[in-house]
Amino acid sequence: MEKQNNITPFEKDISKWYSDLVLKSNLISYGPIKGTMFFKPYGFAIWNNITKIFNKEFDKLGVEEVKFPLLFPESLLSKEKDHIKGFAPEVLTVTRVGQKKLEESLIIRPTSEVLFGIYFRENLNSYSQLPLKLNQWVNIMRWENNTRPFLRNSEFFWQEGHTIHSTENEAHEFAKKIHELYQKIVREYLLLPTIKGEKTIMERFAGANNTYTIETILKDGQALQTGTSHYLGDSFTKAFNVKVQGSDNIIYNPFQTSWGVSTRLIGAIIMTHSDNKGLILPSKIAPFQIVILTLFADKEPKILETANKLHSILDKFKVKIDDSNKGIGFKNHKWELKGSPIRIEIGPKDIKQEKVILSIRNGKSKVQYNLSDINNETISKLLLEYDKTIYNNAIKSRDDKRIEFNSVDEIKEIVDNGKYGVAFWEDNMELEKKIKKETGATIRCLINSEFSGKCINSGVETNKLAIFARAY
Amino acid sequence: MEKQNNITPFEKDISKWYSDLVLKSNLISYGPIKGTMFFKPYGFAIWNNITKIFNKEFDKLGVEEVKFPLLFPESLLSKEKDHIKGFAPEVLTVTRVGQKKLEESLIIRPTSEVLFGIYFRENLNSYSQLPLKLNQWVNIMRWENNTRPFLRNSEFFWQEGHTIHSTENEAHEFAKKIHELYQKIVREYLLLPTIKGEKTIMERFAGANNTYTIETILKDGQALQTGTSHYLGDSFTKAFNVKVQGSDNIIYNPFQTSWGVSTRLIGAIIMTHSDNKGLILPSKIAPFQIVILTLFADKEPKILETANKLHSILDKFKVKIDDSNKGIGFKNHKWELKGSPIRIEIGPKDIKQEKVILSIRNGKSKVQYNLSDINNETISKLLLEYDKTIYNNAIKSRDDKRIEFNSVDEIKEIVDNGKYGVAFWEDNMELEKKIKKETGATIRCLINSEFSGKCINSGVETNKLAIFARAY
Repeated sequence: MEKQNNITPFEKDISKWYSDLVLKSNLISYGPIKGTMFFKPYGFAIWNNITKIFNKEFDKLGVEEVKFPLLFPESLLSKEKDHIKGFAPEVLTVTRVGQKKLEESLIIRPTSEVLFGIYFRENLNSYSQLPLKLNQWVNIMRWENNTRPFLRNSEFFWQEGHTIHSTENEAHEFAKKIHELYQKIVREYLLLPTIKGEKTIMERFAGANNTYTIETILKDGQALQTGTSHYLGDSFTKAFNVKVQGSDNIIYNPFQTSWGVSTRLIGAIIMTHSDNKGLILPSKIAPFQIVILTLFADKEPKILETANKLHSILDKFKVKIDDSNKGIGFKNHKWELKGSPIRIEIGPKDIKQEKVILSIRNGKSKVQYNLSDINNETISKLLLEYDKTIYNNAIKSRDDKRIEFNSVDEIKEIVDNGKYGVAFWEDNMELEKKIKKETGATIRCLINSEFSGKCINSGVETNKLAIFARAY
Repeated sequence: MEKQNNITPFEKDISKWYSDLVLKSNLISYGPIKGTMFFKPYGFAIWNNITKIFNKEFDKLGVEEVKFPLLFPESLLSKEKDHIKGFAPEVLTVTRVGQKKLEESLIIRPTSEVLFGIYFRENLNSYSQLPLKLNQWVNIMRWENNTRPFLRNSEFFWQEGHTIHSTENEAHEFAKKIHELYQKIVREYLLLPTIKGEKTIMERFAGANNTYTIETILKDGQALQTGTSHYLGDSFTKAFNVKVQGSDNIIYNPFQTSWGVSTRLIGAIIMTHSDNKGLILPSKIAPFQIVILTLFADKEPKILETANKLHSILDKFKVKIDDSNKGIGFKNHKWELKGSPIRIEIGPKDIKQEKVILSIRNGKSKVQYNLSDINNETISKLLLEYDKTIYNNAIKSRDDKRIEFNSVDEIKEIVDNGKYGVAFWEDNMELEKKIKKETGATIRCLINSEFSGKCINSGVETNKLAIFARAY
């Protein structure tokens, strides 16, 4: 008997299913400290594909790449009063070098507003240097108690964009533009039908005027904050004394944005698209779009020859040949688990008839093809269809979990049943806190509806819809 | 008068010349903690170009990219006894989260042998999984007292490759292969005529059996360790209890290598090629190979049109158009300082005759060209010549500083005069320590000579030549 993948079914234990997936598909293994991970070649290849997509789009917006320090003096965290409140409890602090105590303790960046504040202060003096649009891909640390690979890590990897502008309006519009861009990229390449909205005051980034978010509704009905873009106003430029001289010679504090997506994106992909056989990867981020599996390649030289020929024909794609000595069942399970979109089997029987067997990761069955019919064009069509199916399934899954409701009393039952609730809502922080405490649900975002309706709490007419869900 | 670059001459104050260069060309600005830096867009673009070159070559060797944790528990550092001796005094240590003391202190990686040790132990069990060739591009921290951007940072960026093999021989050969590769890349792309040799026992990496190094002789006669490749034997697999079962079913500790190049490469480039006007960048790592400078572009629309046309004709290169409102003198100084290999001026006078003015960064004078003669081919030839000149200058500078000597008494005078010494040498750690203490010079490496001669200390016949120099 071939060895099976031994994935715990999703229906039996979501948490075990998830860890089986990330470990057995070789995305990661656990690091020596809680919430950290060894990002393995297969997992890191996915992340590299994702970062390339974002970089290409950032380039088009004139965003330049930088790399800023890991550490900053502890005292600087308190410069912006909301910012410290948000981050102080979870920052890792360096207090000594070797056995020698440091005069001032140093903080590992939990985000880099502080560092960009210092940088802007020292490198700007005139409005003519604005806007400045910077981005960095770095590691971040925030101490977490409940950790889960990708979804909630103590160390994670992200991009953080930081821009600074002459006017409030320009900065605010740029924050919204990034919000749009995030939604576009994540839908188009990662096939995540995210919900796009704004955070309530309670859920805003510590120190922001506005936080725009895209939220993914996962397989288990919980939400995942998938990307955020913050309009920071001048609160950080005031706190860090960043000043420029305007065209009218008046000196003022310019306006900032910051925005980020992280390795959480991989968590969102897994928790949206995967099944009990393993990962299902969108074609544009899969390390290999096609894996060619050979049968008895050691006995029949023509098999490996054909595999190599096919590899060179399919030059628009990343192709992997698995000519290992394992049985075909083992290989199929392995690449099913690893989420390769297309598998092509080449064995002695079919090769005689110039045929191959093709399987689609989310398809129902294997199909025999004429070898001569396999080319860039056929594969492109299949992958287009493949991605479309994945995306439509994700939309269906998202929408099947939506419950429109009319009273806050219903929230607990909704989220207990693995669903999320939608209702007209006027921002009310006190009530939001109470709901969070009693049900574990938070408002993931407020979205602008085409229509208006009565807030289920105050009865006031509004066009804001609140999404209530539990979240990772 | 146009503003000049105001670079302190190299002859007057090397240290000030160096900091003027890195700051005024906008490679970096200083970070909030000693020895850290804000890596600005122009500087980071150089680093990105360098990393791409190395990645391409690593790919060919089957090296896979990973990303491992930043921190590990302090106790693990002491697992390998030489390793801890080498690194303990300079490691940054996290002792609390927020105000809460951690049960076990955590170390920011000063290098990642410890982490790869843990990883290999947990992920390997059979010889059939070997060799495993991994590499990561990450930030590293080592507390330094004498810091200088790129040359000696508390936080720096590097790649660290870690491989593990079934046999001693295979591992040792791989360490040497990387050594060769480093020399090849650094000479071909960075135009650094490094000296390739092996470290003495005293200068080896903490925990290595052999350390192979490439050393750059800088403009001031000091040496810079530019890249190292270590054969680690089984000392780390023993220390971390990494075991695999061989084809003969016997369980044993496999054999490792580790190897790295860092942002020091940028320091080596600056301290080898630059002059009193600013940076001189090898064409293959310059952010822009060509900068087009416009004159009076606001008064004559044809000028910007021509610049854009030229930009699209020169599609084999990274081209920047500087159409800012500054004077041509200012722009020339700026891009001279930033080390752009080729500058092309387009102004109203020349454009009437369909001409442009072309300057080469390391050339003597400006040359008028017919606009129609500027294309990918002409520029390719010019850049080839440009790179060749840079490389030959670097070789000359290196060789002009070489002093062959016959007695250890001469070493102090040699290095005091900004030179480095070469002599036949038999390894002698006691004497090496004494020389270091008395002269500040160390043996940068031992090289295998074609010839043999008498060791200047012991008189024993040897084919090893020692390079004595002060080093950054």
